[in-house]
Amino acid sequence: MMPELDKPHEECGVFGVAANHAQAARQAYFGIFALQHRGQEAAGIAVSDGARLRLHKDVGLVSQVFDEGIIAGLQGHMAIGHTRYSTTGSATAPNAQPMLLDTRHGPVALAHNGNLTNAAQLRQRLMEQGVGFTSTSDTQVMIMMLAASDGGSWMDRITATMAKWQGAYSIVVLTNEGVYAARDPWGLRPLTVGSLPGGGHAAASETGALETIGCDGVREVHPGEVIALHREALIVRQALEPDLRLARCTFEHIYFSRPDSVWDGRVVHDVRYRLGQQLAREMPVEADVVVPVPDSSIPSGLGYSAESGIRFDIGLVKNRYIGRTFIQPSHEMRVQGVALKFNPMPSVLGGQRVVLIDDSIVRGTTMRHLVGMLRGAGAVEAHVRVTCPPIRHPCFMGVDMSTYDELIAHKMSVEEMRISLDADTLHFVSLEGMMTAIGREQGYCNACFTGQYPFEIPETAGKFSLEPMGEGRV
Amino acid sequence: MMPELDKPHEECGVFGVAANHAQAARQAYFGIFALQHRGQEAAGIAVSDGARLRLHKDVGLVSQVFDEGIIAGLQGHMAIGHTRYSTTGSATAPNAQPMLLDTRHGPVALAHNGNLTNAAQLRQRLMEQGVGFTSTSDTQVMIMMLAASDGGSWMDRITATMAKWQGAYSIVVLTNEGVYAARDPWGLRPLTVGSLPGGGHAAASETGALETIGCDGVREVHPGEVIALHREALIVRQALEPDLRLARCTFEHIYFSRPDSVWDGRVVHDVRYRLGQQLAREMPVEADVVVPVPDSSIPSGLGYSAESGIRFDIGLVKNRYIGRTFIQPSHEMRVQGVALKFNPMPSVLGGQRVVLIDDSIVRGTTMRHLVGMLRGAGAVEAHVRVTCPPIRHPCFMGVDMSTYDELIAHKMSVEEMRISLDADTLHFVSLEGMMTAIGREQGYCNACFTGQYPFEIPETAGKFSLEPMGEGRV
Amino acid sequence: MMPELDKPHEECGVFGVAANHAQAARQAYFGIFALQHRGQEAAGIAVSDGARLRLHKDVGLVSQVFDEGIIAGLQGHMAIGHTRYSTTGSATAPNAQPMLLDTRHGPVALAHNGNLTNAAQLRQRLMEQGVGFTSTSDTQVMIMMLAASDGGSWMDRITATMAKWQGAYSIVVLTNEGVYAARDPWGLRPLTVGSLPGGGHAAASETGALETIGCDGVREVHPGEVIALHREALIVRQALEPDLRLARCTFEHIYFSRPDSVWDGRVVHDVRYRLGQQLAREMPVEADVVVPVPDSSIPSGLGYSAESGIRFDIGLVKNRYIGRTFIQPSHEMRVQGVALKFNPMPSVLGGQRVVLIDDSIVRGTTMRHLVGMLRGAGAVEAHVRVTCPPIRHPCFMGVDMSTYDELIAHKMSVEEMRISLDADTLHFVSLEGMMTAIGREQGYCNACFTGQYPFEIPETAGKFSLEPMGEGRV
Amino acid sequence: MMPELDKPHEECGVFGVAANHAQAARQAYFGIFALQHRGQEAAGIAVSDGARLRLHKDVGLVSQVFDEGIIAGLQGHMAIGHTRYSTTGSATAPNAQPMLLDTRHGPVALAHNGNLTNAAQLRQRLMEQGVGFTSTSDTQVMIMMLAASDGGSWMDRITATMAKWQGAYSIVVLTNEGVYAARDPWGLRPLTVGSLPGGGHAAASETGALETIGCDGVREVHPGEVIALHREALIVRQALEPDLRLARCTFEHIYFSRPDSVWDGRVVHDVRYRLGQQLAREMPVEADVVVPVPDSSIPSGLGYSAESGIRFDIGLVKNRYIGRTFIQPSHEMRVQGVALKFNPMPSVLGGQRVVLIDDSIVRGTTMRHLVGMLRGAGAVEAHVRVTCPPIRHPCFMGVDMSTYDELIAHKMSVEEMRISLDADTLHFVSLEGMMTAIGREQGYCNACFTGQYPFEIPETAGKFSLEPMGEGRV
Repeated sequence: MMPELDKPHEECGVFGVAANHAQAARQAYFGIFALQHRGQEAAGIAVSDGARLRLHKDVGLVSQVFDEGIIAGLQGHMAIGHTRYSTTGSATAPNAQPMLLDTRHGPVALAHNGNLTNAAQLRQRLMEQGVGFTSTSDTQVMIMMLAASDGGSWMDRITATMAKWQGAYSIVVLTNEGVYAARDPWGLRPLTVGSLPGGGHAAASETGALETIGCDGVREVHPGEVIALHREALIVRQALEPDLRLARCTFEHIYFSRPDSVWDGRVVHDVRYRLGQQLAREMPVEADVVVPVPDSSIPSGLGYSAESGIRFDIGLVKNRYIGRTFIQPSHEMRVQGVALKFNPMPSVLGGQRVVLIDDSIVRGTTMRHLVGMLRGAGAVEAHVRVTCPPIRHPCFMGVDMSTYDELIAHKMSVEEMRISLDADTLHFVSLEGMMTAIGREQGYCNACFTGQYPFEIPETAGKFSLEPMGEGRV
Repeated sequence: MMPELDKPHEECGVFGVAANHAQAARQAYFGIFALQHRGQEAAGIAVSDGARLRLHKDVGLVSQVFDEGIIAGLQGHMAIGHTRYSTTGSATAPNAQPMLLDTRHGPVALAHNGNLTNAAQLRQRLMEQGVGFTSTSDTQVMIMMLAASDGGSWMDRITATMAKWQGAYSIVVLTNEGVYAARDPWGLRPLTVGSLPGGGHAAASETGALETIGCDGVREVHPGEVIALHREALIVRQALEPDLRLARCTFEHIYFSRPDSVWDGRVVHDVRYRLGQQLAREMPVEADVVVPVPDSSIPSGLGYSAESGIRFDIGLVKNRYIGRTFIQPSHEMRVQGVALKFNPMPSVLGGQRVVLIDDSIVRGTTMRHLVGMLRGAGAVEAHVRVTCPPIRHPCFMGVDMSTYDELIAHKMSVEEMRISLDADTLHFVSLEGMMTAIGREQGYCNACFTGQYPFEIPETAGKFSLEPMGEGRV
Repeated sequence: MMPELDKPHEECGVFGVAANHAQAARQAYFGIFALQHRGQEAAGIAVSDGARLRLHKDVGLVSQVFDEGIIAGLQGHMAIGHTRYSTTGSATAPNAQPMLLDTRHGPVALAHNGNLTNAAQLRQRLMEQGVGFTSTSDTQVMIMMLAASDGGSWMDRITATMAKWQGAYSIVVLTNEGVYAARDPWGLRPLTVGSLPGGGHAAASETGALETIGCDGVREVHPGEVIALHREALIVRQALEPDLRLARCTFEHIYFSRPDSVWDGRVVHDVRYRLGQQLAREMPVEADVVVPVPDSSIPSGLGYSAESGIRFDIGLVKNRYIGRTFIQPSHEMRVQGVALKFNPMPSVLGGQRVVLIDDSIVRGTTMRHLVGMLRGAGAVEAHVRVTCPPIRHPCFMGVDMSTYDELIAHKMSVEEMRISLDADTLHFVSLEGMMTAIGREQGYCNACFTGQYPFEIPETAGKFSLEPMGEGRV
Repeated sequence: MMPELDKPHEECGVFGVAANHAQAARQAYFGIFALQHRGQEAAGIAVSDGARLRLHKDVGLVSQVFDEGIIAGLQGHMAIGHTRYSTTGSATAPNAQPMLLDTRHGPVALAHNGNLTNAAQLRQRLMEQGVGFTSTSDTQVMIMMLAASDGGSWMDRITATMAKWQGAYSIVVLTNEGVYAARDPWGLRPLTVGSLPGGGHAAASETGALETIGCDGVREVHPGEVIALHREALIVRQALEPDLRLARCTFEHIYFSRPDSVWDGRVVHDVRYRLGQQLAREMPVEADVVVPVPDSSIPSGLGYSAESGIRFDIGLVKNRYIGRTFIQPSHEMRVQGVALKFNPMPSVLGGQRVVLIDDSIVRGTTMRHLVGMLRGAGAVEAHVRVTCPPIRHPCFMGVDMSTYDELIAHKMSVEEMRISLDADTLHFVSLEGMMTAIGREQGYCNACFTGQYPFEIPETAGKFSLEPMGEGRV
């Protein structure tokens, strides 16, 4: 659960359910539990029994934030939930979700995955109308806009408000009237719905979460769609026309999603497998063993092995219980080689020409460390293969990778990177090869590779000019 | 720290400081520490260094919410603080203060003691303008109105907004520009300012808190006044004309304030002493010993004793370490006489005719228990004397005593009460006698005794129609 | 709950109960709750249902260590409990009581108030026999000796072991066979027993705790006695002859005990009242007002007032909610006069010649501060009167006052102290006067005043040579 | 971190270090961190600076029990650490290790992995000598025996005491004189030592932990050996002759150890790979895909695939963030198929004949669930292969698998199990095949498969007759 220090970070997972029993919160618990990989900093569930909204959220893992007493107290047949990743190391709660607001239309709760690129403008406009904000979060801007909306129903209000939002948003909304799921017209972040076998419907960021709670009839919430979840049915409205430049996030395939999730009709595990195959085709190398960086690159390692005929093996062991340690090794210990995250397998690597498969390189620090580890364990060659192209541009749609400075590929050519990483060869899958592996020619946002964003990005999109408000418990 | 179950409850204490050093938060800590008796449920401090606001607040006693690391992290020369009493037993944080809001005028924090009687209407109006609320607190309505205000300075905005507020409010406001203290034109709740000997100024609900931090030049914030606290000076503006019907809360004398605080120019301890004298004059009785209900009635017991010539003694011992226990005695233990809050002193009470002095009777449950305790310890007569008139009407200005149903004096005559309490005689000080002891003929709100409120109370004043939003951490 | 920094400290309160229901732990909760003033650092309860012992203890106030779930889980008809004061500020648990040990005679739990002066020798002897210890506590030595005892019953084992203990011990012992209360032959620390009205018996350090739970038939456990508590009866054995030099701790009268407790047949409140009278007789002074240091000196203030005819008033206000704050005022704030513990009452003190009554002076720091406070509030004379003689010698029987260095009266004459405290006059009650107020000529330990200990004190009595073992949770 | 419900459980991991700097505790932190897989219930570190022992331990993961402040406070150049698995779900701390005892030889701390089969007798003997115990743990028996030992040095005391212990013990001992590592003469549990590159030596349950902190010169502590760790050297003593029937635990290969650890000279990953190969040779089957139960069976899955030529793929996804959830799905949710631990991959499994590889079957419940999951995801055949023989006998050497009742293989034949699991075929590797994969003919304890224990097991070996002592914090 230690944040993967050199990986892009997804901001959130969302979940919603309309059940035929009063334990919707319990179902939401298992839903966000299955989305824990999308965010480990905070978790929350809001529930409604049709008359009243209740909310519990806090900093921590899903299993830490909730206990049996809390879940039992959250009675109601409708619920939404959220898991949150945060860029700050501090244990502050203010931006935990769902957010809950009392409005003239009654109380409403919102959980959001994504990032509004025009949030700063929208927030400024609301402030000029006299609204104050308790946080700098774009989610609070969104829920305040729902509060201000004139529409006659929540479907209308969500529809009307969506038209003003630019950027990535997959949201679930809870009111005493219903549960709603909505997705931006670019389809940037995933969102899916399904039926519970015994009755009721659920929505989740990933199909894997719906599978976990036993759903069938799973399908995407289409870009621009709003869906009201009911016990008996889904009520669907195409609130906004899907944008012509559909812009699904490629990184859901590369790294974010569970391997068992389906994204854009493709099983993520299978895409990763084909990305490995593609790498083997694009830049073959003579080698003895294919070693994945666990766990996310195991499928691509298998694909590379299958395509190249080079045997696959586990050459790096990951410490799975690492938790969120804030203890740092002393300088002496670092010099002596304290290895926190991975240990090498000399019996697998010794004397071998190794193909090391990883999903992505952001800063390059971890990869440099891993190559050194391979060589220390006796590998005679280290051929690094990466299942996405070089990340040269920041993301403004909800992935924590939002400055140029931190991107090694923004500052170096591939050859410079190879030297910097001390790899014998280095190859990133080509943009075309990646799309081939995905099995699509277009419909994806590849802005972090190409700099071509699906829409114009305001200068203020990266973050607000405000410092975070408050310290500790606020 | 167990809530006094049969006493009226004050809602809060507030504190503000503009210091000539960067440790304003530390000074605020000692300020709210000295106001802990006004609320034990939650505590918070907001601080500004002129560029940024920081906030820390949580459920618990002042000494539990803050530690050295938190205080050290709250750097800045301006601060406000708050202690909160809550009517709910649950450990929820959402209504803890200060509240902090980012606005078009920059961030603002607010701490409030009192209750707006027109909060529901104001809130409704804001909601109709599209504003949503994260809590049902009137404080959030107030801060949101400050955010919406057009004034060119914070002094102007506070002034303009005060005109719309009806009810009790003693507030401190913190922005990056300054610290402000303001009080409603009826003067319902106390608020005072003073100078720090080494430079700087402070405001607090009670003079006792200013004394605790060494202030001199202490004076009231006058009804309707706004005062900007600066390092070098106080900038004073009479924002609203004081209402002709000044309405200071009598209960600050009776029960709420520290005995060392000055309220309306009178030392509270001295008022209480005179209330005891007044009781002795109003309804003399032959008796052997005057026993106060500790701790608040010790001064009035001394006054009663001095006036009547009957000796004073400590006949009831209070368990001072009682904390907030949620363990309940079993039925068996109750029958066996488990006494949690007070123990009687048979050596003081045995064979004696006892005058028992208490400050007030709300439900009557505790007094009934105490009279039984006196008799059990051998008292031959129990003469109950109360230093305020019968409480027959609810309070809508921030005291937790807001329904008729819970008031024994609303349902019974004094004679019926006497029988119900099993007292030999029962006397409440007369309204006139109470005012004599205070030394004023008017200028006080005695609505809880008379039903004559200082202004018209809307039907919605008691509380909002909304249920509290959220459970646990929100 | 802040430790009274300049007072002697009691180490503990103990409680035991044999009930006629399975909720003995609940009764023990209220018992130790009423003994909270004897120790605020840690609390614990052990319970037996006749077949199994269960224990819960932790650092904190009684109300913090236990909640309804914990109490409900401690089923059984026999229980003992303990509250502990600790000299260390750190939050370590290892010395919390009761201690629980499995022995060849079955499990046994022990809670102890006092201090064995020969603990170091006994511990050394056991260690030489091969026993290891998990703490430096004398209580662990005691329970290990019980484990090693050969006697055929717990009564026999306790009896046999007591003969080897020198020093102060009032203990309660729990096994699956019964609950036992025992007291050293010098009677140093209090211990009492009583009957529960509905059946069952209880023991407690003070009668006040037995009164709190409704006991009648309360009497002392006599020095040297062991009493087995049963549902129907008390089984009493004089295990050791009472020592000819009975040595009750005078400080139980002076400061430790609740005013409603009875110690040596005297109500503590009444003794304190007479101590005040005695002071007035011993050293009269012309003055205007008698002011007690709250809360413990209120009864002696009343006595002084009655005897001298000088009026009594509350001139110092104590901050009752002070908690255990670890926040320290900055130097600047100290200079500005931050007053944490007491505030003076200028309306009571101004222009007055004040007699200030306190129970004891250890280091003198608080008294010096109080005298300055009186003068700052306008007092024209400050006459300090103390209800015990000068403390010139350390205590080795369980009071945290165990080095000469910290005792102002060890280093200065009364006149030097008067100058140091800046008092106009200073008088400590005489030893004879104190005993007169108590109403006994002998039978008390006055070693801290006289240096005449009831038995020879080994050099190792003060504390063990060992550092505390472990940090944090052990 | 959820306990693997249908797996055997290791009881502990131990670590010791003698460093050439004062941050031995920090090194111990990373050491037990790398042993977290051996126990997730509690963790502790004891440290010595040569003059004083300090200890910190608590319930929780290593990363939860320690923070920077705690580690920084544990100064000293010698340290031992422990991670603990517990059979109880409750959050009790009493049995956390290291244990610390003050003895006539000075303080000593002990951390232990294993189980003494004669602990009950030894404990009884000590109790008869008058020693009491605060827990039922065999570790406390061990440390109390060290305390009682007469030897002239800690090496002598450890040597002398080891002769009395029967069963599995790999221990580290800390005193102010040194750090010691010792292992039982049967070699049941692993224990290894190595040199820190910059000076100093370390010991750990597994080589993987020594690798993690950068050790070289790693070797086993031989059965029966005691090694004193010094800054400059290892001082080795063969305390007991290795037993002729060496009895290394086979399950370290099968399941317990990290794949990168070396056990008995074999890399655990490689043994697992060969176990997969062996399974393929012993019972070939026509199939389409080899699917491991993640994560421990990935190496054996690769071996099976390599040997059989059937492709390897990831057909089950493990929820890695599952934490220790105590929330249970409702009955409705179970019926609807809530899948907490694993999700199936229909794209891998659909229409396939699947070989499912797992390391062991204890109760059979998880395997039954997994087979159902495979079929639900479209697998047409399910061939279960297990990398150890049927577990028919309990373990008394520290593995939590100590009653016959819970073992499916004790109650059913392989064919009955196959039917019960709903597998098409079921094969457990043969004992001979397993030993072939390990590459040894003897020297292992296979008692759980064969019932042939390395020594006679007393009736009391399984657990003590005592109930656990105490609840909550003791």
